[in-house]
Amino acid sequence: MKKILIIGGGFAGINAAKKLGNCPDLQVTLIDRRNHHLFQPLLYQVAMAGLSPADIAAPIRTLLAKYQNITVYQGSAEKVLPNENKVICDIGTYEYDFLILACGARHTYFGHDEWEEFAPGLKTLNQATEIRRRVLSAFETAESTQDPAERKRALTFVIVGGGPTGVELAGAIGEMSRFTLAKDFRNIDARLTRIILIEFAPRILTAFDEDQSARAARDLEKLGVQIWTNSAVTNIDETGVYVGNEHIEANTVLWGAGVAASKLGNTLNVEQDRQGRVLVEEDLTLKNYPNIFVAGDQAHTKGKDDKPLPGMAPVAMQQGKYIGKKIIADLEDKPCSPFKYLDKGKMATIGRSKAIAHSGKMKLNGFIAWLAWLFIHVLYLTGFKNRLLVVLQWGWSYLTFRRGSRLIVGKKWRFYDQNS
Amino acid sequence: MKKILIIGGGFAGINAAKKLGNCPDLQVTLIDRRNHHLFQPLLYQVAMAGLSPADIAAPIRTLLAKYQNITVYQGSAEKVLPNENKVICDIGTYEYDFLILACGARHTYFGHDEWEEFAPGLKTLNQATEIRRRVLSAFETAESTQDPAERKRALTFVIVGGGPTGVELAGAIGEMSRFTLAKDFRNIDARLTRIILIEFAPRILTAFDEDQSARAARDLEKLGVQIWTNSAVTNIDETGVYVGNEHIEANTVLWGAGVAASKLGNTLNVEQDRQGRVLVEEDLTLKNYPNIFVAGDQAHTKGKDDKPLPGMAPVAMQQGKYIGKKIIADLEDKPCSPFKYLDKGKMATIGRSKAIAHSGKMKLNGFIAWLAWLFIHVLYLTGFKNRLLVVLQWGWSYLTFRRGSRLIVGKKWRFYDQNS
Repeated sequence: MKKILIIGGGFAGINAAKKLGNCPDLQVTLIDRRNHHLFQPLLYQVAMAGLSPADIAAPIRTLLAKYQNITVYQGSAEKVLPNENKVICDIGTYEYDFLILACGARHTYFGHDEWEEFAPGLKTLNQATEIRRRVLSAFETAESTQDPAERKRALTFVIVGGGPTGVELAGAIGEMSRFTLAKDFRNIDARLTRIILIEFAPRILTAFDEDQSARAARDLEKLGVQIWTNSAVTNIDETGVYVGNEHIEANTVLWGAGVAASKLGNTLNVEQDRQGRVLVEEDLTLKNYPNIFVAGDQAHTKGKDDKPLPGMAPVAMQQGKYIGKKIIADLEDKPCSPFKYLDKGKMATIGRSKAIAHSGKMKLNGFIAWLAWLFIHVLYLTGFKNRLLVVLQWGWSYLTFRRGSRLIVGKKWRFYDQNS
Repeated sequence: MKKILIIGGGFAGINAAKKLGNCPDLQVTLIDRRNHHLFQPLLYQVAMAGLSPADIAAPIRTLLAKYQNITVYQGSAEKVLPNENKVICDIGTYEYDFLILACGARHTYFGHDEWEEFAPGLKTLNQATEIRRRVLSAFETAESTQDPAERKRALTFVIVGGGPTGVELAGAIGEMSRFTLAKDFRNIDARLTRIILIEFAPRILTAFDEDQSARAARDLEKLGVQIWTNSAVTNIDETGVYVGNEHIEANTVLWGAGVAASKLGNTLNVEQDRQGRVLVEEDLTLKNYPNIFVAGDQAHTKGKDDKPLPGMAPVAMQQGKYIGKKIIADLEDKPCSPFKYLDKGKMATIGRSKAIAHSGKMKLNGFIAWLAWLFIHVLYLTGFKNRLLVVLQWGWSYLTFRRGSRLIVGKKWRFYDQNS
């Protein structure tokens, strides 16, 4: 029986496993350091207290329970031995005939790892609940303090990075302070919250065309977000953020800037790009290793114009399915055409009822784009128990301006877990 | 304007605040170390992955937002100065004309605080998610290990204390292993899980009559729970539990035994019982301090036969409401009769569809008691956004035997937060 080993239960890993789960004569093993698959596009909703962790996560073994040929382990892969067809994990060493690496990406602080403590990123559920804790605690501090300077610091939120995550976080904080929290406090006016979105490039959402990027900026400014473009962060510490000589005092700084691929790729001794992504062939295999596939955020896959495909859920899903198909073809000695990404477009959401979307020649803005965003995200929450519940909860939040999950739990952390 | 200070946002504190929130000429301040009110009777459902934290918790300031005369702070009370009418908190010192102490209870390890690390109790959301993490991780360890002894340890769960919490936890683990997880693993048979419930007394659920206690024991045994009565735990360490000379090797030990009142009562210099509860007068005030009230799990209130009232939600709710009424009467110089507890009965639930209930002369067992339990608990989830959602989620779990929130998040802790 051929052994297939999948490292990572994200969109790529799960989709590959589902394809291979239909072949009873393959022995499939999936290892992930977490017990759950995460619907990452909605992770910012957990950070912003709109959804609970369980709304967007499901146990990997439950998702794959019906495939009797798939075994799931919770464990951490530490080293790939490509010439021995083995992977060393903390829970043991696993052999494979085919290996699928889909370990995703983590945040990078451009050589300033010491910033992480003060500016958490948003890749895991733990990070999301930590961000939630910080944001909600800042309002509590502002309410209880007598010191105007401390109050001002507490009500200042800085988000570094004007990509989709940064825009989602900034919009959600703007909305939370202007609507959800407006009536809950006695000593502060939550609507006076200062939210600063810092972007190195000349505009936010650079993956979109200029007109849509400008539209998103206007929508954010309506929610009270100040957008600082052409701005480089030079330091982050417990007092706040430094942009050149300027010092923004802030209790809460969030990081949505740099992304780097999982470090596991470093153990392969193959070519990687600047972000640590592993360069793959047209069929998503490694050069010289036709039995090792890399997919999702961990892979550098050439798209149109030789630019790498973006780190988005649809890319990972299509790659996972392709790899499953490719392995089956290989085993049957059948040919298989190279991987081709079917681009259905991209979207970014700004607060509770605005978004931008761009698909082919179609551009959508504002409320209609937000409806499209909502529809697609709910549609893709497949395999989750509670698609209906999520919609109900959103509907409720929408009608009442409340946020259901405004819980401060846990303690302040110094170090965060990331995809390694 | 008279100042009312409430310490603690549990059932007693919230109900007192709501009564006083209707008097616009009172200045009410509520301080809690957490930002949320917790529906503690369902906390074990969070620990057992049936519900999400947000399903049973709501921000205190949202619950009280409509009362313009109430200010809520997140902070920790450290010392009461009863002769100066002041309370020292970490966020400042607060004066009062009337003080309501409702700080609840915490676990006690009978002088063995070092056991806490190995056997967490269940009083807070953080503890619930930690218990969830430990229980689910144990099954993951059992699935991935090759060592039969380690696997046996991982599949052994010990619950110390045969009160309602211990019974709920034991029943839920039994059910989870027999139904929810049965099909999810390849290397282990989750149904072979060993669950031991240890009780010092000759029977479990001593607050109930013997026939109901025996019925509950039989129901638990059907779920595979072994009940060890007349058993005293002599030590707990990282290897498991010692009962006399017997050593039960277990990865997961949960604590549902001793309860002690909040330590804040120690700063009052008044009479306390062995569990640290403050002895109160018939009107729930302190002897010699008619402007200081103590309520809920923190108070020792004499009931029938001079026995103290039990630490249950209905007692705390009724006391909170009474104190609100009493303060209003005091301010209007009107008389107010002593506090009288209206006993509506008690219940305990065993797994997914069994319970026992005792109200007046009526005793209910089995499924009908469970329906009564469900009805009452959903009814009392008032003020929460999502009574409907909770019911839907339960209904779904019931139909599918799934558990919606089987997420392992966080890291292993050494020390837990408790109500101080």
